[in-house]
Amino acid sequence: MKLLYPTSLILDVARLEGFSVELQPYDVKAPEIPAEHHDADILITWTNSPDNLKYARANLPNLRWIQSLAAGPNDVLSAGFDTSRVVVTTGSGLHDRTVAEHALGLLLNAARRFYEMRDFQLQGKWPGHLGGPQPDRPKDRFTTLRDARVLVWGFGNIAKCLAPSLTLLGAEVRGVARSPGVRDGIQVYAEDSLPKLLPHTDALVMILPGSESTKNVLNAERLRLLPKHAWVVNVGRGTSIDEDALVDALEAGEIGGAALDVFQTEPLPEGSRLWKAPNVIVSPHAAGGRPQDAEDLIQYNLRRFLANQPLKNII
Amino acid sequence: MKLLYPTSLILDVARLEGFSVELQPYDVKAPEIPAEHHDADILITWTNSPDNLKYARANLPNLRWIQSLAAGPNDVLSAGFDTSRVVVTTGSGLHDRTVAEHALGLLLNAARRFYEMRDFQLQGKWPGHLGGPQPDRPKDRFTTLRDARVLVWGFGNIAKCLAPSLTLLGAEVRGVARSPGVRDGIQVYAEDSLPKLLPHTDALVMILPGSESTKNVLNAERLRLLPKHAWVVNVGRGTSIDEDALVDALEAGEIGGAALDVFQTEPLPEGSRLWKAPNVIVSPHAAGGRPQDAEDLIQYNLRRFLANQPLKNII
Ligand SMILES: NC(=O)c1ccc[n+]([C@@H]2O[C@H](COP(=O)([O-])OP(=O)(O)OC[C@H]3O[C@@H](n4cnc5c(N)ncnc54)[C@H](OP(=O)(O)O)[C@@H]3O)[C@@H](O)[C@H]2O)c1
Ligand SMILES: NC(=O)c1ccc[n+]([C@@H]2O[C@H](COP(=O)([O-])OP(=O)(O)OC[C@H]3O[C@@H](n4cnc5c(N)ncnc54)[C@H](OP(=O)(O)O)[C@@H]3O)[C@@H](O)[C@H]2O)c1
Repeated sequence: MKLLYPTSLILDVARLEGFSVELQPYDVKAPEIPAEHHDADILITWTNSPDNLKYARANLPNLRWIQSLAAGPNDVLSAGFDTSRVVVTTGSGLHDRTVAEHALGLLLNAARRFYEMRDFQLQGKWPGHLGGPQPDRPKDRFTTLRDARVLVWGFGNIAKCLAPSLTLLGAEVRGVARSPGVRDGIQVYAEDSLPKLLPHTDALVMILPGSESTKNVLNAERLRLLPKHAWVVNVGRGTSIDEDALVDALEAGEIGGAALDVFQTEPLPEGSRLWKAPNVIVSPHAAGGRPQDAEDLIQYNLRRFLANQPLKNII
Repeated sequence: MKLLYPTSLILDVARLEGFSVELQPYDVKAPEIPAEHHDADILITWTNSPDNLKYARANLPNLRWIQSLAAGPNDVLSAGFDTSRVVVTTGSGLHDRTVAEHALGLLLNAARRFYEMRDFQLQGKWPGHLGGPQPDRPKDRFTTLRDARVLVWGFGNIAKCLAPSLTLLGAEVRGVARSPGVRDGIQVYAEDSLPKLLPHTDALVMILPGSESTKNVLNAERLRLLPKHAWVVNVGRGTSIDEDALVDALEAGEIGGAALDVFQTEPLPEGSRLWKAPNVIVSPHAAGGRPQDAEDLIQYNLRRFLANQPLKNII
């Protein structure tokens, strides 16, 4: 049995040894995979080029399992593997800590107005109005996570990793997912509760996957339900926000601001109205991009693969 | 017995009732305090004007206790009260959560390079190099709090409030204070350990009070001990950093950056080299400025005052 692992990230390969599996490195950007590895059974992918994946599809007849390290392995899916023959598992879980940290940073950037301070700094001006004695938790602004009502829409692995930091800083955290219930001590609601929840939200954090069912779910109607001071943070997928409706709301002052790591089109096109809309923070899909503890997941799934048990994170 | 409380912040005065003390509001910005309140025994201060404090000193003969809500009540001290007759207590503890939150925000701003993203955004440019697949926790940069070695210099109330958030995000937190020991589970060292600690620091967070003993303690010699990628964050007092030495280090690329909420002179003067030095985040003394749960401290000290017991936070 042969496993090909990518050299596009640092893996502690020693932690994958001890199985009856030959471990071989490969270059994920190369247009071809060397002939001596065409007998590979397992492919670990990370930032592969489209050509490389297409080559693998056409030239690795024994391939039975692809472990992607990406949370949403669109690249693998669009390379056209025969998924009745090749199992694809995602890297869901490997990006929880990095994305949660970024989301927390965006929330604090919004609350503490670091982006606005920056604009003053670039002009060599001291923004006195943003410092000194300040009103404590004013009702009509989002200035701190303490007592802030944070609604996390998409309450999966990343949200569960983010929630303790928010709670520790004093936020009241609630979640929205497909099915309601209490998860890790946080009350999670179904989407039909949104009309009740949105009007009592100071910061809406979107961590939804990209799919048909999440397309433009944050639309004009739902934006109107948010308080005028509420911020929208998105670290899930850009497709879940109707960007035109968002810019309209920002320009009309109907919401407080938006801190976005993901966009309908990436890179954000030059002509996008988001660049200049008020109180927008543009982050270039920088939340994740660094799988954490990938060895644990690979090892776990390798054990199950060899024992013919169902794998974790099957698409 | 009469207590004057400020109208410069929202106080839940009902929580101060039930003592044999008359509670009266007063305007901290007025140059005079009304004659009918010249018999006050207790003065609570917050953002008083210098004139107001000088007037109080000269015209409240019964005054025996001033409770400032500021962490460092320099204003009260410089008004010249006779401290052999008037006890002054500080608002130390009322700013822990706000300052800790700001410090966390500055650390994430630095690690996630939000300030740099902003510069690109203002030009309508997508900073692709700051997003997408990234190296995981590279040794030569400060990119995340996970596994980051954070040294908190000045390990008092604010630091104790900040440490759990850092630990939760995966940082290795150590402290420096006047006396060593373990505090709240964090190993705290004395200043003579700095030469050993600084070379193993990814982020140095300064939360020192302003005093003779903390003047310019972060000087050229100590800056040289930090790794080239290390960030300096200061939310204590600007006087604890030799700003010329800091700018020299920044310009020479000898440290990674500096996120500063406090400065030797505030507002930061137009001519300061800090405005244009690379990787500097200028925050306009915005960390605190909002006493939290002041009623608890006032009530506690009021009880002790009436019982003739030593007050908390005496200067
Ligand atoms: N910005 C970045 O760099 C970055 C990095 C990694 C991942 N991401 C994105 O973040 C997404 C979430 O990651 P995760 O690991 O937290 O995923 P996850 O564990 O699969 O959680 C997804 C959550 O979304 C909910 N959900 C899915 N469809 C929904 C719908 N139509 N309506 C309401 N809720 C819905 C799910 O509800 P149930 O729990 O009820 O099923 C679940 O709570 C990923 O899919 C990826 O697109 C972004
Ligand atoms: N940026 C803002 O808006 C803002 C707001 C509030 C406060 N602050 C500043 O933050 C400072 C700290 O506040 P805090 O409430 O945490 O104070 P704190 O509880 O009194 O703690 C001060 C810490 O500094 C240490 N320290 C004092 N002098 C030192 C020296 N010469 N060398 C080494 N360590 C020394 C103390 O050591 P020991 O524990 O060993 O005594 C203690 O750990 C305040 O004094 C104030 O200047 C800033």
